[in-house]
Amino acid sequence: MEGDIAQLGQFVGAGLAAIGSGAAAIGVGHVAGNFLAGALRNPSAAAGQTATLFIGIAFAEALGIFAFLVALLLMFAV
Amino acid sequence: MEGDIAQLGQFVGAGLAAIGSGAAAIGVGHVAGNFLAGALRNPSAAAGQTATLFIGIAFAEALGIFAFLVALLLMFAV
Amino acid sequence: MEGDIAQLGQFVGAGLAAIGSGAAAIGVGHVAGNFLAGALRNPSAAAGQTATLFIGIAFAEALGIFAFLVALLLMFAV
Amino acid sequence: MEGDIAQLGQFVGAGLAAIGSGAAAIGVGHVAGNFLAGALRNPSAAAGQTATLFIGIAFAEALGIFAFLVALLLMFAV
Amino acid sequence: MEGDIAQLGQFVGAGLAAIGSGAAAIGVGHVAGNFLAGALRNPSAAAGQTATLFIGIAFAEALGIFAFLVALLLMFAV
Repeated sequence: MEGDIAQLGQFVGAGLAAIGSGAAAIGVGHVAGNFLAGALRNPSAAAGQTATLFIGIAFAEALGIFAFLVALLLMFAV
Repeated sequence: MEGDIAQLGQFVGAGLAAIGSGAAAIGVGHVAGNFLAGALRNPSAAAGQTATLFIGIAFAEALGIFAFLVALLLMFAV
Repeated sequence: MEGDIAQLGQFVGAGLAAIGSGAAAIGVGHVAGNFLAGALRNPSAAAGQTATLFIGIAFAEALGIFAFLVALLLMFAV
Repeated sequence: MEGDIAQLGQFVGAGLAAIGSGAAAIGVGHVAGNFLAGALRNPSAAAGQTATLFIGIAFAEALGIFAFLVALLLMFAV
Repeated sequence: MEGDIAQLGQFVGAGLAAIGSGAAAIGVGHVAGNFLAGALRNPSAAAGQTATLFIGIAFAEALGIFAFLVALLLMFAV
């Protein structure tokens, strides 16, 4: 058995961080899904809420991209 | 017991990252599922929300593809 | 105690990736389930949304097949 | 302490893959459950959506059977 | 410290596979629960959907039994 045990930690940690990236997609899906459910019930109001849709998606997506960033940092920068 | 312990970390990490890829499918399913539920209630409004459907799918799918990318990087690039 | 520790990582990683494959089925179930709920409420509109049903299933299924691909790569290609 | 450590990975990996097989049942249950909820509200439309029911079950079940396949491959083929 | 490390893997793997068996019960519960909710709203239609109820339970239960089979194979056959 050879190899650097700190590298083992980096790679397992990157994999765990990627789970966080995928889990954030559940939140993004919740925002976009509920916008669509409401917009199809009352289409004339949909245009006025598009800004809120993108704000909601952006905040949920940001957390997933932070997790992806942790995975990249663990693989290439640390 | 032989073998490189850093490779162990790469392969376990790739498997963990693939869980993130699968979890993102829950978000994609939420977007497409709510679009279908609304479009079948009010079919005449469905065409106007198709762009939002694909935007929502794209943002959720992106996070799953980031997790898949981490799995590929761990297996072949690191 | 003998054996290659990198192989241990490959087999445990393949098992973890298979969890991602199963988790994606939740998203696929959400798309098909909401289509059925809507189609049974308004059967005359169901034919017009069949294309969206298959698009939604395809995007969610793709993420599960990516996870299955990671499992196959870990078992046979890496 | 004796034994092949790669076999340890095969058996733990098979157990992990079986979690994916079980998780896919949540998706199958969502498809069949929503069909039943709709069919009992509007029984006359149920016959026309039976094909969609089996398509939805098949796509969700496939991902669970992929996970079960990974478990069998890990136990008997790798 | 004595004992075969491959046996450790068999027993841990069987325990993990039993999680999958339990997770499948969520899907079975969704099928039977939605049938009951609908049948109590519209009892006269329940008899016509009993076949669909058993088909849905069978597909979801199968994935849980696959996970249980993996646990049994790990304990007694491998």
